[in-house]
Amino acid sequence: MSVLDPHLARYAARAKGMTASEIRALFAVASRPEVVSLAGGMPDVSVLDYDQVAAVAAEVMASQGDVALQYGGGQGSPELREQLCTVMRTEHVSARPDDLVVTAGGQQALDLLARLFIDAGDVIVAEGPSYVGALSAFGQYEPHIVHVPMDEGGLIPEALAETLDRLRDEGRTPKMLYTIPNHQNPAGVSLDLERRQAILRLAEDHDLMVIEDNPYGMLDFKHETRTPLVTLAPERVIYIGTLSKIFSPGMRVGWVLAPRSVRDRLVLLKEASDLCQSNVTQAIAEAWLRTQPWMDQVRAFTELYRERCDVMLAEIETAFPAEAAVAAPTGGLFAWVSLPPAIDTGAMLPRAINARVAYVPGRAFFADGGGTQQMRLNFSYADSTKIAEGIRRLGKLIGEELTLLEAFGR
Amino acid sequence: MSVLDPHLARYAARAKGMTASEIRALFAVASRPEVVSLAGGMPDVSVLDYDQVAAVAAEVMASQGDVALQYGGGQGSPELREQLCTVMRTEHVSARPDDLVVTAGGQQALDLLARLFIDAGDVIVAEGPSYVGALSAFGQYEPHIVHVPMDEGGLIPEALAETLDRLRDEGRTPKMLYTIPNHQNPAGVSLDLERRQAILRLAEDHDLMVIEDNPYGMLDFKHETRTPLVTLAPERVIYIGTLSKIFSPGMRVGWVLAPRSVRDRLVLLKEASDLCQSNVTQAIAEAWLRTQPWMDQVRAFTELYRERCDVMLAEIETAFPAEAAVAAPTGGLFAWVSLPPAIDTGAMLPRAINARVAYVPGRAFFADGGGTQQMRLNFSYADSTKIAEGIRRLGKLIGEELTLLEAFGR
Repeated sequence: MSVLDPHLARYAARAKGMTASEIRALFAVASRPEVVSLAGGMPDVSVLDYDQVAAVAAEVMASQGDVALQYGGGQGSPELREQLCTVMRTEHVSARPDDLVVTAGGQQALDLLARLFIDAGDVIVAEGPSYVGALSAFGQYEPHIVHVPMDEGGLIPEALAETLDRLRDEGRTPKMLYTIPNHQNPAGVSLDLERRQAILRLAEDHDLMVIEDNPYGMLDFKHETRTPLVTLAPERVIYIGTLSKIFSPGMRVGWVLAPRSVRDRLVLLKEASDLCQSNVTQAIAEAWLRTQPWMDQVRAFTELYRERCDVMLAEIETAFPAEAAVAAPTGGLFAWVSLPPAIDTGAMLPRAINARVAYVPGRAFFADGGGTQQMRLNFSYADSTKIAEGIRRLGKLIGEELTLLEAFGR
Repeated sequence: MSVLDPHLARYAARAKGMTASEIRALFAVASRPEVVSLAGGMPDVSVLDYDQVAAVAAEVMASQGDVALQYGGGQGSPELREQLCTVMRTEHVSARPDDLVVTAGGQQALDLLARLFIDAGDVIVAEGPSYVGALSAFGQYEPHIVHVPMDEGGLIPEALAETLDRLRDEGRTPKMLYTIPNHQNPAGVSLDLERRQAILRLAEDHDLMVIEDNPYGMLDFKHETRTPLVTLAPERVIYIGTLSKIFSPGMRVGWVLAPRSVRDRLVLLKEASDLCQSNVTQAIAEAWLRTQPWMDQVRAFTELYRERCDVMLAEIETAFPAEAAVAAPTGGLFAWVSLPPAIDTGAMLPRAINARVAYVPGRAFFADGGGTQQMRLNFSYADSTKIAEGIRRLGKLIGEELTLLEAFGR
């Protein structure tokens, strides 16, 4: 294999600057078994009964092999879409199967929506911090992403109003707001109804399209159900759902609920991207939702993550310096920690991995260089003992960093 | 649902002109059971033993559930990539698992390569006719596609030389050649070794990257194996493979073999597109290739299609007008028919569907409006009786069209 890149001169402009991040290289090291990784975003699929999934898969193949092994339509299996409507109903979203387009997880929904809506230079408003996968999906189409601050109640409506006014004054009309209203990734917090209404009023005033991404809504630690934005403003909001956190990410089943005109275009883009969703996984997911007590599984996921989150928060309380701040997660998979301003979590990561613990530096969740003193910690994958050990290692390291900074200055 | 499109003003420039084609609307009608469809590109998966697939799927879920139901890496499962190297070896391609990136079928390989390489206005050279899915994947990134004529031996090297010289004289440097060397879709024909070498010499002279798409190579009616372009010029050729035609399109497993620099970027694009390939289908495909006599299945597909192709050609011989021309397919799924110049296959399609037979009009396979008197006929999906009936209906219709055209002029 030649070291020189024979195709260097041929890359498209959008791909020229594309290089694997340092973080990625570090994570390769972080996958060693002695490292406690609080970095990923993986559900703990051991909650699932593999033999039961095996039985469902076998039944589907034996009885619907002619369909499951064949190409499917670009919009996705009608039977699966019907089940997905049932899933959405548990969160107060009313939709018919024809209103959905099935995608390869929520990530493909983001990619297709970005391709459909984003011209280079478009302004997109998003929470700060925001989901790293959305930033990378959007980033391919070269927008300007403007972050709006959050607090323990999620996106701050007053801050959104200020941002939108400022952008208007600058003549930069934002095209859309991207938001995760429930158990946000990475911030772990949720919007109450009042904020939802305030945000939608602003979207109305500024004629803003809203992309509502809801992977974690059902993983609520108090079993609350929060009314989705799409239910409050169906014509203005495009909604993204996924089975990755309530069933299995290995299925790669997500979906978009959108007005017909958008949906028709998404189907064309889906076909240009990968022709169609896998009928194999669609059939297994459909049969799973139709025949299994999947809500019990969702509760089992939620209970497990709540316990682990509690362990993480308690351990942070004792192991981290007093100046560290963390908003108690309302559910989901992540806690977002702010460290004293002297700490740069990006610079600290190699030392953390050396101390056998990994996290994602806050910078990954900002398109504008923000987040240097923050980190995202995952509590869905490692067990409680490992989480406690990981937090202790991290606390010790942060203490050492602060001592050094005190001695030598920044 | 509002009739007005609330998002009309927001679409990206690349998506503004995007509308469902008339052909698409007609095909919705063509799916009625009384219509013999020679339009699709579906393999006949009834060749597969569904119970055997069910057993493999169940075994995989029960024994590897923790991996199969989880997120996977962006490059695809290492175990599957090892099996895919074995598949490629049967066609004289030598590669290591690390040289591959797994994609959602060959279509996603085309989309990711297009996103990586195509800037708006770039010139791409392709066979005329060319695969409609490649045209739509490339089309999203707004290139100029220049077609090069084919004959019964495939892409004509002299015509390619002329085209490349003309483009050079015009100052339009093409970035790549896209080609399906084996049993081309839609033309059904294959390149011999001499043409392959001539084409690669031209690629060398004009510093052209080559994308070699090989979905049908193993479906050779004479069980010939033709040396792939990538084997002849590994540094210049990016190779796309897929399991869709040798196992199952429902798996959505394809792959790209590319130099490391390209591969690293493809992994990043894959992650931005859908995070990772489904571990469920990767695990099933891996176990299938590892444990089943899959080469026997490929032979069974090939024999079935050869029989049906023979029926189709024999029926065309008697039912179509003498001026109709069809190159005998060397393998694969498709025959390409040229009708007398008076016929417009696009205009004729509604009448064909009315006569209960469907095909794809030739225009779909050209980016430049060519192909008006051609049509693509599929012989892999309908059984021989239906194929014969479909061709007779089509022959009758073409006869009527010619009589009308004779009476009234064009």
